[in-house]
Amino acid sequence: MIEKKYEREIEVKGHLIDSMVLTRIFDKVMDLKGDFQVLEFIVGKRKRESSYARLLVKGKNQQHLYELLESVYREGAQPVILQQVMLEPAVKDMVMPDNFYSTTNNPTQVFYNNSWIDVENIMMDKCIVLNIEKKTAICKMIRDIRKGDLIVVGEQGVKIIPQERPREGIDIFQFMSSTSSSERPTLQIARKVANDIYNTTMAGGKIIVVSGPVLVHSGASASLAKLVRMKYVHGLLTGNALAVHDIENALMGTSLGMHVNDGTLAVRGHRNHMQAINEVFKAGSLKAMVQKKILKSGVMYECIINDVPLILAGSIRDDGPNPDVITDVVEAQIKYKLLLKDAKMVLMLSTMLHSIAVGNMLPASIKVVAVDISQPVVTKLLDRGTTQAIGVVTDIGTFLPMIVQCLEQIDATRSKNRG
Amino acid sequence: MIEKKYEREIEVKGHLIDSMVLTRIFDKVMDLKGDFQVLEFIVGKRKRESSYARLLVKGKNQQHLYELLESVYREGAQPVILQQVMLEPAVKDMVMPDNFYSTTNNPTQVFYNNSWIDVENIMMDKCIVLNIEKKTAICKMIRDIRKGDLIVVGEQGVKIIPQERPREGIDIFQFMSSTSSSERPTLQIARKVANDIYNTTMAGGKIIVVSGPVLVHSGASASLAKLVRMKYVHGLLTGNALAVHDIENALMGTSLGMHVNDGTLAVRGHRNHMQAINEVFKAGSLKAMVQKKILKSGVMYECIINDVPLILAGSIRDDGPNPDVITDVVEAQIKYKLLLKDAKMVLMLSTMLHSIAVGNMLPASIKVVAVDISQPVVTKLLDRGTTQAIGVVTDIGTFLPMIVQCLEQIDATRSKNRG
Amino acid sequence: MIEKKYEREIEVKGHLIDSMVLTRIFDKVMDLKGDFQVLEFIVGKRKRESSYARLLVKGKNQQHLYELLESVYREGAQPVILQQVMLEPAVKDMVMPDNFYSTTNNPTQVFYNNSWIDVENIMMDKCIVLNIEKKTAICKMIRDIRKGDLIVVGEQGVKIIPQERPREGIDIFQFMSSTSSSERPTLQIARKVANDIYNTTMAGGKIIVVSGPVLVHSGASASLAKLVRMKYVHGLLTGNALAVHDIENALMGTSLGMHVNDGTLAVRGHRNHMQAINEVFKAGSLKAMVQKKILKSGVMYECIINDVPLILAGSIRDDGPNPDVITDVVEAQIKYKLLLKDAKMVLMLSTMLHSIAVGNMLPASIKVVAVDISQPVVTKLLDRGTTQAIGVVTDIGTFLPMIVQCLEQIDATRSKNRG
Amino acid sequence: MIEKKYEREIEVKGHLIDSMVLTRIFDKVMDLKGDFQVLEFIVGKRKRESSYARLLVKGKNQQHLYELLESVYREGAQPVILQQVMLEPAVKDMVMPDNFYSTTNNPTQVFYNNSWIDVENIMMDKCIVLNIEKKTAICKMIRDIRKGDLIVVGEQGVKIIPQERPREGIDIFQFMSSTSSSERPTLQIARKVANDIYNTTMAGGKIIVVSGPVLVHSGASASLAKLVRMKYVHGLLTGNALAVHDIENALMGTSLGMHVNDGTLAVRGHRNHMQAINEVFKAGSLKAMVQKKILKSGVMYECIINDVPLILAGSIRDDGPNPDVITDVVEAQIKYKLLLKDAKMVLMLSTMLHSIAVGNMLPASIKVVAVDISQPVVTKLLDRGTTQAIGVVTDIGTFLPMIVQCLEQIDATRSKNRG
Repeated sequence: MIEKKYEREIEVKGHLIDSMVLTRIFDKVMDLKGDFQVLEFIVGKRKRESSYARLLVKGKNQQHLYELLESVYREGAQPVILQQVMLEPAVKDMVMPDNFYSTTNNPTQVFYNNSWIDVENIMMDKCIVLNIEKKTAICKMIRDIRKGDLIVVGEQGVKIIPQERPREGIDIFQFMSSTSSSERPTLQIARKVANDIYNTTMAGGKIIVVSGPVLVHSGASASLAKLVRMKYVHGLLTGNALAVHDIENALMGTSLGMHVNDGTLAVRGHRNHMQAINEVFKAGSLKAMVQKKILKSGVMYECIINDVPLILAGSIRDDGPNPDVITDVVEAQIKYKLLLKDAKMVLMLSTMLHSIAVGNMLPASIKVVAVDISQPVVTKLLDRGTTQAIGVVTDIGTFLPMIVQCLEQIDATRSKNRG
Repeated sequence: MIEKKYEREIEVKGHLIDSMVLTRIFDKVMDLKGDFQVLEFIVGKRKRESSYARLLVKGKNQQHLYELLESVYREGAQPVILQQVMLEPAVKDMVMPDNFYSTTNNPTQVFYNNSWIDVENIMMDKCIVLNIEKKTAICKMIRDIRKGDLIVVGEQGVKIIPQERPREGIDIFQFMSSTSSSERPTLQIARKVANDIYNTTMAGGKIIVVSGPVLVHSGASASLAKLVRMKYVHGLLTGNALAVHDIENALMGTSLGMHVNDGTLAVRGHRNHMQAINEVFKAGSLKAMVQKKILKSGVMYECIINDVPLILAGSIRDDGPNPDVITDVVEAQIKYKLLLKDAKMVLMLSTMLHSIAVGNMLPASIKVVAVDISQPVVTKLLDRGTTQAIGVVTDIGTFLPMIVQCLEQIDATRSKNRG
Repeated sequence: MIEKKYEREIEVKGHLIDSMVLTRIFDKVMDLKGDFQVLEFIVGKRKRESSYARLLVKGKNQQHLYELLESVYREGAQPVILQQVMLEPAVKDMVMPDNFYSTTNNPTQVFYNNSWIDVENIMMDKCIVLNIEKKTAICKMIRDIRKGDLIVVGEQGVKIIPQERPREGIDIFQFMSSTSSSERPTLQIARKVANDIYNTTMAGGKIIVVSGPVLVHSGASASLAKLVRMKYVHGLLTGNALAVHDIENALMGTSLGMHVNDGTLAVRGHRNHMQAINEVFKAGSLKAMVQKKILKSGVMYECIINDVPLILAGSIRDDGPNPDVITDVVEAQIKYKLLLKDAKMVLMLSTMLHSIAVGNMLPASIKVVAVDISQPVVTKLLDRGTTQAIGVVTDIGTFLPMIVQCLEQIDATRSKNRG
Repeated sequence: MIEKKYEREIEVKGHLIDSMVLTRIFDKVMDLKGDFQVLEFIVGKRKRESSYARLLVKGKNQQHLYELLESVYREGAQPVILQQVMLEPAVKDMVMPDNFYSTTNNPTQVFYNNSWIDVENIMMDKCIVLNIEKKTAICKMIRDIRKGDLIVVGEQGVKIIPQERPREGIDIFQFMSSTSSSERPTLQIARKVANDIYNTTMAGGKIIVVSGPVLVHSGASASLAKLVRMKYVHGLLTGNALAVHDIENALMGTSLGMHVNDGTLAVRGHRNHMQAINEVFKAGSLKAMVQKKILKSGVMYECIINDVPLILAGSIRDDGPNPDVITDVVEAQIKYKLLLKDAKMVLMLSTMLHSIAVGNMLPASIKVVAVDISQPVVTKLLDRGTTQAIGVVTDIGTFLPMIVQCLEQIDATRSKNRG
């Protein structure tokens, strides 16, 4: 009888086996040394049918049961008897209630007043604020919380819709397992990524590029400039260094004092990147440099000319930084987040700092291609719970030119077919 | 006769051969396809005697000669006939004259009014501002330049004193060649680094630690806390993540939700780092957390209790960031630079971002120990022209505890000998 | 009606959900664009009960069905109507029939004459030879095949018993997820590995160490020597280089000419490893060096004195190699395999070459600890289908001493408790 | 007076400053805490003139002086009074005298009977055997030594001719500093390497490729096959794995079961590499497979068809290995060495094992291009004392196709110009 208190019936629907939802639920219970009983299990008879399971979860005591339920709710399970989400007001600005619910990057709903409300703008590791009048819920960062905000606490009344594993698809994201390795056919991967860039753009999808200065040092910035010109880039998130070396390259043909076209060292080249920064300060801004015809090529130039939004976030290691850089990181995060809204695909090109920043802001459903020459970096970037991400361990200096070659072929074929 | 115009006599003194100064001067001339003649060469007859060389450098034309001279001046050579430094005023705030002289991180002097003036606060890739009345010269960052500042232009009248290679020394910095490798006897290196930390502290030298969150994840933050308690750390430069995970560890025993003492995952642990941030916002600051006895252990706690200055620089990837973080990177750089003033030794522990920032601010003479598990990262950190730097490719999770063990033994021996 | 030909009923038992067996079966069918129907599914009601599933697999044609079945059989499924294994004789030595069955490293049985026969000595990527008279089956390497051997072909009549995922255990292999990372608490991992070494040895389990020369360069060979002396190592698989540098260290205190105790370079040290090799040739063998009291310490010495089997496999990059090295790699493989028989635990210490060789020979059930400073190497070593393997991305130069410290503490505690 | 006994006059000629010979000599004396006096120093007045130095080296005692001299002789210095080389016979096969002289990979001469004899076939870490009658000297591996061979002992009478640093050259080997990095313009490097391959071949120089199986996995084996067909490869040194996966690719379109043209997994693909091995055993050899028209494309095919020598060295991790593999590593080393004789350029493509083996066999003057995605591997390969080596940290899967594209352009231009 007494034991009854430490049990709860839960249920879960979907591709339980296929997407390993049930496996993860069983795992969680066992990891926490709880017990369970399968009360009902209706398996999808055919591959497209979803399954249903009803389980009895048993804890050793009230606290234990609570822990077990918290864990399984995060995997998409729900109590059979629906419970309303619990709310607590923020006692002051930027302070959450102790028991705040911390979000995942999966689509999330909260149950309030007998209806499920979608949480807007979902991101990982944030909290949920409910607007009772408007019946809306929004995912908020800690610095955006205002005194009195009604914040979701505990785990009840929150439903997560786990990403189904994509099956039988055709694009790059279905063709590679999630692990990254340098032992893959790089040329073929480049071709598939190019196809996906093309298809996403044709379907009106927004593609955001995140990149760092290695792009310039490795000689690939001309390729990114071309991608922008070809209209395949709809936003660029980066920092001071890419801008500086791109301008250095445009004005003096060097990157960190080394001639990009032949790798030799320039005379007095050590001061070239400082001179590039000085030129931006002289003109006042990147845009002014373009208007005054000082800056006539490169990634920055193409972004400005083609009206591609460009956000430069400051970092502690910046030289300068140049006046276009947002030196306050909280402000920069806000601008990054805004540009990422509704993005369909994100290319992370050889920058760990900015890629992690972006990864933290993305819902699980966005397609991500993470490219770096270091496998640990790629592994770390993929380790964000995104199910549509592929990692490519390769040299951006050859990989990006390959992608551009493929896109040029696609464009040429298309023109021909039309012509 | 005509050729005479493209020649210049230069001279150089010091351990020309031993420290490869002459080799580098010959190199520079030949790299630029110039010509030279050795007019006089007095070699130090014994190993402690310095050498003297007088050379005639020949260019193909005025511009070429100018380039040759610029190059060799940066290696410590000087024209035989002394020339006054050239100055030009900044036309507006944050803008340098086009031909600004870009500094190295070596001790530097400028020749003005028949005397050599030391450049204060030397850092790499900055410019030099002369105060004519006070006869002082200072190295300034681009954002600190004010309209009217007299800025050194061109290369003439600037003397660099290259670091002599340390010889026959006894500390760690003499025992390893500059290249880093994971194939070194790590235990012995730990012992030598410990000795150097001890000797530097005993001699009243300031030791600054730069670190990132891997310190906590790898289980080594207790060792850093101990180092602080033992008074071997005189300043800590880091970011939001180390603080957050250190507090998470102090309050909940986890780092990113994983129990640091046994590596298992905590229940609801994914929200622990967010909760740690929330606790700081609740208390208002790290100091307040200590005063209110909420925070009672860890690296942050020890720094605050032991009055060790602590600077947290913001970055675009920060969660939160907690209220102690300086979110403006330009402001954070200024604070970093201030704390690094007069430092004798810098320990860079598993953070590329902050270490590069610090590396850019250090004169070449400071002892640097750069530790990371990735060889490319260590190589990059050493590649800053510091002659007193060693790189250790190892796991900070075992290396730092080893250093603490060694320092405890030294302390114990010392107590015994005194007692 | 016609369709019926391309269907087959299969069944599978075990922890189908918990161990993801069913997920993988569904995956395989869908990857190959097949179809299926769940005819019966009895889920284990409690966590220790096993489940049962009966499925109808549907192909587009005979060949397609065949491919689908092959795939699912490898995941542990079986046709409902048992079929006898198919056999074909080898037409000549070292040649398998075209359609040979290629093994996994999981426990395997073949159905012949109405009974299931265990396959002995299972290894990955080999073939199965049946002895009809003795009713035995053995896993054979290609070079061991003799003309007339009855070799299993196709996939029918072969049953694989997939490893259940270990649950609720207590040793190191249950505490870490399979992915490796340098961001783990290394000291704690060392403690857990030490406990596991102790427990395995106490239970009479055989522990085999695989290592390379980095062990000596990093200063950790004294620790391995100690482990051997403490009786925690029951076999050592390595190559020429570890032996040579261990002897160099024992005779001259250097490794590749560098003093292991302080990292300085020895006079004429470049010839030390050649001299070490010469000393072995002079004595005739490692054993003779020990008997003649030339070799008095180190890993080789301890192995010989403590009767720990030691196998040195030759490689193309060997200097010498010393006379104890088996220069024929096929012969060396046979010796390796023999020593690995019945091993319970394998420690792979900073050697990719020998570790991959060993990984290919191990059944999936052996505990493996793979240690390397490079994450890609650790990832590659774990990528062998072993379910009981953990990877540790750390510096062997500090990790192995830590393990020895822990084992000494365990031994000390045990003595005390007994005393 | 007595002190006089511990002094010796030495002399040295060449580009002493430019090539840092004098720096290294000073270094060595000081590292060993010896003393020196510069008796005479004639500096080359112009950049192409060589310099001359006469020094008095002073030790603390006879042994110390001996150590000092040994060190400086290895840097190219010679005693002013020439001394004959000392010889000692090998007392038995494969055993060198204790005090054997261990070679460098620089051109070396021995002084015997008043004349300098060139040492043939110089390699690192071997000994020198003198044939008194024939007045020849040869560099021998330890296993080739025969009882009675007259082996050079000590350091006297041996002259090393250090490589002059190449200056003002035009090929790739002059354009990059020795350090490797992933932050280089990869496309430009590919172009320069292609030019060098072209020029070397046009000048009749022998180009040897060393490679591993990553070539196939990364999709670049078609490019190597093309290079062979274009006659730019004059020998291939590799192991079993490249051959197996190349054949797997040629016969089944997969590498380790993954389709190379699209990265998807093949049905039953896990057994493909075993099947490839079986096919070689069935045919008897690679050559037989080509003759029987079983093997019709790929790297192995092109080598056989184009009569390019191909040596497969066995390793402990081999599956099979296929019958063309030399399973005895000592025999394989001999074959490798033979093929490397007179090579002008060596391309090391993503294999550490075989590249280290080859590196040990090369004189310092051979041009080496070492390509790998891991910087530590490239650093290790370059760390062999070769002065003409460049390291490229890139993805072979895109780098080799780029080189082939460049060579095709060169060929096309040449045809056009001729036509």
